[in-house]
Amino acid sequence: MASSSLTLSQAIFSPSLPRHGSSSSSSPSLSFPIFSGLKSTPFTSSHRRFLLPSTSFTKQQLSVRASAAVETLEKTDAALVEKSVNTIRFLAVDAVEKANSGHPGLPMGCAPMGHILYDEVMKYNPKNPYWFNRDRFVLSAGHGCMLQYALLHLAGYDSVQEEDLKSFRQWGSRIPGHPENFETPGVEVTTGPLGQGIANAVGLALAERHLAARFNKPDSEIVDHYTYVILGDGCQMEGISNEACSLAGHWGLGKLIAFYDDNHISIDGDTEIAFTEDVSARFESLGWHVIWVKNGNTGYDEIRAAIKEAKAVKDKPTMIKVTTTIGFGSPNKANSYSVHGSALGAKEVEATRNNLGWPYEPFHVPGDVKTHWSRHTSEGAALETEWNAKFAEYEKKYPEEAADLKSIITGELPAGWAKALPTYLPESPADATRNLSQQNLNALAKVLPGFLGGSADLASSNMTLLKMFGDFQKNSPEERNLRFGVREHGMGAICNGIALHSLGLIPYCATFFVFTDYMRGAMRISALSEAGVIYVMTHDSIGLGEDGPTHQPIEHLASFRAMPNILMFRPADGNETAGAYKVAVLKRKTPSVLALSRQKLPQLAGTSIDGVAKGGYIVSDNSSGNKPDIILLGTGSELEIAVKAADELRKEGKTVRVVSLVSWELYDEQPADYKESVLPASVTARVSIEAGSTFGWQKFLGDKGKAIGVDGFGASAPADRIYKEFGITAEAVVAAAKEVS
Amino acid sequence: MASSSLTLSQAIFSPSLPRHGSSSSSSPSLSFPIFSGLKSTPFTSSHRRFLLPSTSFTKQQLSVRASAAVETLEKTDAALVEKSVNTIRFLAVDAVEKANSGHPGLPMGCAPMGHILYDEVMKYNPKNPYWFNRDRFVLSAGHGCMLQYALLHLAGYDSVQEEDLKSFRQWGSRIPGHPENFETPGVEVTTGPLGQGIANAVGLALAERHLAARFNKPDSEIVDHYTYVILGDGCQMEGISNEACSLAGHWGLGKLIAFYDDNHISIDGDTEIAFTEDVSARFESLGWHVIWVKNGNTGYDEIRAAIKEAKAVKDKPTMIKVTTTIGFGSPNKANSYSVHGSALGAKEVEATRNNLGWPYEPFHVPGDVKTHWSRHTSEGAALETEWNAKFAEYEKKYPEEAADLKSIITGELPAGWAKALPTYLPESPADATRNLSQQNLNALAKVLPGFLGGSADLASSNMTLLKMFGDFQKNSPEERNLRFGVREHGMGAICNGIALHSLGLIPYCATFFVFTDYMRGAMRISALSEAGVIYVMTHDSIGLGEDGPTHQPIEHLASFRAMPNILMFRPADGNETAGAYKVAVLKRKTPSVLALSRQKLPQLAGTSIDGVAKGGYIVSDNSSGNKPDIILLGTGSELEIAVKAADELRKEGKTVRVVSLVSWELYDEQPADYKESVLPASVTARVSIEAGSTFGWQKFLGDKGKAIGVDGFGASAPADRIYKEFGITAEAVVAAAKEVS
Repeated sequence: MASSSLTLSQAIFSPSLPRHGSSSSSSPSLSFPIFSGLKSTPFTSSHRRFLLPSTSFTKQQLSVRASAAVETLEKTDAALVEKSVNTIRFLAVDAVEKANSGHPGLPMGCAPMGHILYDEVMKYNPKNPYWFNRDRFVLSAGHGCMLQYALLHLAGYDSVQEEDLKSFRQWGSRIPGHPENFETPGVEVTTGPLGQGIANAVGLALAERHLAARFNKPDSEIVDHYTYVILGDGCQMEGISNEACSLAGHWGLGKLIAFYDDNHISIDGDTEIAFTEDVSARFESLGWHVIWVKNGNTGYDEIRAAIKEAKAVKDKPTMIKVTTTIGFGSPNKANSYSVHGSALGAKEVEATRNNLGWPYEPFHVPGDVKTHWSRHTSEGAALETEWNAKFAEYEKKYPEEAADLKSIITGELPAGWAKALPTYLPESPADATRNLSQQNLNALAKVLPGFLGGSADLASSNMTLLKMFGDFQKNSPEERNLRFGVREHGMGAICNGIALHSLGLIPYCATFFVFTDYMRGAMRISALSEAGVIYVMTHDSIGLGEDGPTHQPIEHLASFRAMPNILMFRPADGNETAGAYKVAVLKRKTPSVLALSRQKLPQLAGTSIDGVAKGGYIVSDNSSGNKPDIILLGTGSELEIAVKAADELRKEGKTVRVVSLVSWELYDEQPADYKESVLPASVTARVSIEAGSTFGWQKFLGDKGKAIGVDGFGASAPADRIYKEFGITAEAVVAAAKEVS
Repeated sequence: MASSSLTLSQAIFSPSLPRHGSSSSSSPSLSFPIFSGLKSTPFTSSHRRFLLPSTSFTKQQLSVRASAAVETLEKTDAALVEKSVNTIRFLAVDAVEKANSGHPGLPMGCAPMGHILYDEVMKYNPKNPYWFNRDRFVLSAGHGCMLQYALLHLAGYDSVQEEDLKSFRQWGSRIPGHPENFETPGVEVTTGPLGQGIANAVGLALAERHLAARFNKPDSEIVDHYTYVILGDGCQMEGISNEACSLAGHWGLGKLIAFYDDNHISIDGDTEIAFTEDVSARFESLGWHVIWVKNGNTGYDEIRAAIKEAKAVKDKPTMIKVTTTIGFGSPNKANSYSVHGSALGAKEVEATRNNLGWPYEPFHVPGDVKTHWSRHTSEGAALETEWNAKFAEYEKKYPEEAADLKSIITGELPAGWAKALPTYLPESPADATRNLSQQNLNALAKVLPGFLGGSADLASSNMTLLKMFGDFQKNSPEERNLRFGVREHGMGAICNGIALHSLGLIPYCATFFVFTDYMRGAMRISALSEAGVIYVMTHDSIGLGEDGPTHQPIEHLASFRAMPNILMFRPADGNETAGAYKVAVLKRKTPSVLALSRQKLPQLAGTSIDGVAKGGYIVSDNSSGNKPDIILLGTGSELEIAVKAADELRKEGKTVRVVSLVSWELYDEQPADYKESVLPASVTARVSIEAGSTFGWQKFLGDKGKAIGVDGFGASAPADRIYKEFGITAEAVVAAAKEVS
């Protein structure tokens, strides 16, 4: 978060330069040629990483850049472009060769579009990869990561130095085997699992469109960037990409431009063996504008023209199908699966060098290519400086909006936000935690400017509608209720994109807990890529009743408890639901899953927001000296049952402690003495109750404890009956307590 | 399995009736009008459940049916059809009303197509729901299950009697809240989670096409049925359906006919809010034939004509988009989301009765409707008898093929099949278990006629190609290597369809273990619906190395160990891999997941096929009296490390037992005395090692044991280095052993 705070501090403290029109607004006197092709007269400047003194550019320097605008693509030095493209190809070939591991084929085929994007089209500041208004680039075909690393290297990102290229895929390297946003500044999202990236990109483009609609003013387009993606045949085959692209078409995300690397080769060989659909027609059916670049290997002007056309289509996302040759340049391996995922081998590298006329040593960037690219450092800094000035102006005119936007950019939450969370007394009405969740969602949306989300066509079951907002739609993108349709996997990945767009965007998304099975691929990427998405998962057990075993989660709590860097909450009532939301909002680098009940639950005495923050805590106890006869542990809807059982046992003269283990992960983080105060080692008589798999409970129960749960599939019947038939009852807890004590 | 064995016994023992051409072959003298509309002259016969004495039909009776063929749809009693359709509607309305739970909207809208399918089009035998050559029907929009239950009831299936309809969604009912093949004979697959059913149907249609290609002869079309599906807007939005339908188009599954219930309503309201793509154009792009029935509410002839057209298109699957009104007939709730998932309420039920002119009591089937449908019992029996005769003829002419087909139908494995499994000696070469797996797959394919499968575009990494077979493709459907493309979720659900088509079809499918996250929805349905799919999951840990954390499973072993009715295997070497396959093949009602290594592993002394069958067993021990100083537990690639650590500890004078816990589920099933012989309670010094989450290990380690594993995400580097850096080493095991003993 530090670096982005710095970014904002620039915005806050930069002296007000004259406001310049951004590229897509029209300020003819001083428009910046950032989208318009090669510029041959770079200017240089020195910068500190992530912090540009805004005084480092004079008006004169800025107008030097402006004058470059008169250059056109026709004047581009074609030989230099070719050389730059081959530099990209060989950086990829050499890095994969040195690692003896990786995927050279895609970078070799996609180098032309990569070059055009990073050198001619995209606006970014290599010395501050987190500059808010940058264009976003996503390599959905993440295995081709050397393409992106080579581009980041040429563009001047500090995260990819020559020594990094030489340590590709090695222990401690900053450039891992697939793009990881948390390892490599300049990488926006984490890709590799196919289809995730294109869906992330939909989320990034949604975020831009939403923020632009909320914050742009007729006199200031303060939010204004494109989202570019490269995806391959693999991404296209994955269902998640169809889900996300259907939504992108529905939402009309005109600033999303996807390049489909149409190379006809996947790991198993020619795509003819499994992928013969008409992809372009499919995208048209999804509401996309589609362009076909037939020669992606050398058709630079075709690619440029396609991008221009894509930008002109403002009400639809665009897919540019770019037909390429995988492993372009390799005389013996191009256009075959053998170049997809293995090093070329010394001999073929040599042959490729000869074939493309590349006389240089491995990892060499020719001087003229280096010089050519070096301008991005100064130009990027200028772009940011310009934007900072624009923001300062914006802030003067629109202080309230600026404050909200600033909060969204920096992730700094408004002071006192947590006071908005509702609290409950034991006398408060019983309610399903899904309903209590909705009270929290609506309370949070009032105080958190970046809070938005929705459900996969279950808003009225998941209780996720924000009542004060309308639906985010093509014609109402300023609204905050997202309607994902029945597309769980796409939903999760879109939320990852939203979360990783800006630190203060806090997306939530919802479905039935059992259908996390449909979106686990995206949820794991949330965890890995440190995207603090909030997963609102209702109907969290057999307690949903009649819908039956297809809809009743059993193993799902355990499956998330075993996943790294994700918080699994199972709140028991209103206070615990609020406590879960408090942590979930605070944990911007860890996603949270809230398992919520369909059925009504009482507000329990002893539950608290603060208790939840510790993951496990004592709800009630009639013992003294930290020595109860029995400890009953419960979560969620079964905490009520534990409380009832405790009452019974106390009537019989036992001292009983009831512990809520609402989040195992948070409890595990507590200091030993706290844990000893909740679950003293000396008390081995322990019983847990949870309407889910008992798998994993032994950790808290010890050798002598007993777990009550559900280890088979559920059943279709009214919930009360299932609970009774499955033995998830206070009687069963009492009986087990007697057994173990 | 019993009932299907009976089916086969019919085939085996039925006297040879004259062979009749099936509906799609041309035998003008005696062709059966089973596809051609209403027949008004039913004949009756008595039958025993699932066992039809083949003598119960005379040639004369059969020719009575033949004469019905001259009737045409024009002669159909339109009023009776309408009455039958309303019967279906009200059975659904009444059952949902009585349960006060369920989804009346779809059955009310889809009753016309349901009626036409079950009454006029499909061939089935209600008294033997498992008759091999039946048409398959899948309600992909499973929430509308009352449609199917009503149809099964009218058609004469014993599984849905009036009392069943009255206990819909109640404890112990045979008709649960979503269709479950294991609860309700007549239901082919388990649906409800959206998109699964259409993908299952692709699997069913694939199975038919494959078996037809292998077993049909110019003079005998012994395998010949259609697969029908009804899917809704929800199914269409799910990515899995696009995956599966892309494959269906690619494979040209002409006998797959899908009805898209286009009612414009999903749970959150009008589909306009999230689903505005052009579905028909998308299906055309996927290679389907598309027909639009504009009036699905009353356009019976339109529906009939569409089915006729669909059947005429033999090289493409067909989607018939049927525009319907959800909740048709309900004057105040039709065409709104309120009729989707709740009972209508007494008042609206009354209003609907008035509106549709339905004077009957709840659950009443009018006499003429009952009479009309009653012919299906005899006709179905005749169909089966006819087919049995055909099979007997086939068997005479083609005894080898008949034996294979019989094995596929009954699931009876050929004698001695398990002898084909390879075994290994400690001297056998070290190899990755993924390679050893391929040896097993190829060995099994030689002896199991119903063994087929493939990978999600990773055949050369998962090592899943069957070397003696080619690819199952449009023009080579007799082959057994399935090429799924990068479509994991679709792959899993297609395999469920294959497995549930015939007891002896044993599908396997493959991807990297981490990508089970993409297909978990389908895998859970395998477990729930008792589909014995074999999941070949390679690259099963950080041991895959450079691809990094996006590709390295951590929590996946735990997540499947927590799932009911699925076997999670992690074999350590060749013998254990063979052992896992042996159990996986035998367990036809439980899916198996094999986690296999990318990296080379030695053949260990002490491993065995028989050991694997017990889930956990002693690999080596230098103690006596069941009292080792220390027990080391390992699985898969880390069993080798446990063995090495044991060697070290033994050198230091300790008695050490090494236990392989290759399948926790199988171990849990063992009797207590066996478990005590492996993990004696008195020995508390235990250390486990597994390159995955330690979650759940405490169960075997007890309070004093120690688990060595990986509880964070992995890293991108060569595998050896990651193992060392993460402390997954013999040294770590030795140190932990000293700590705990």
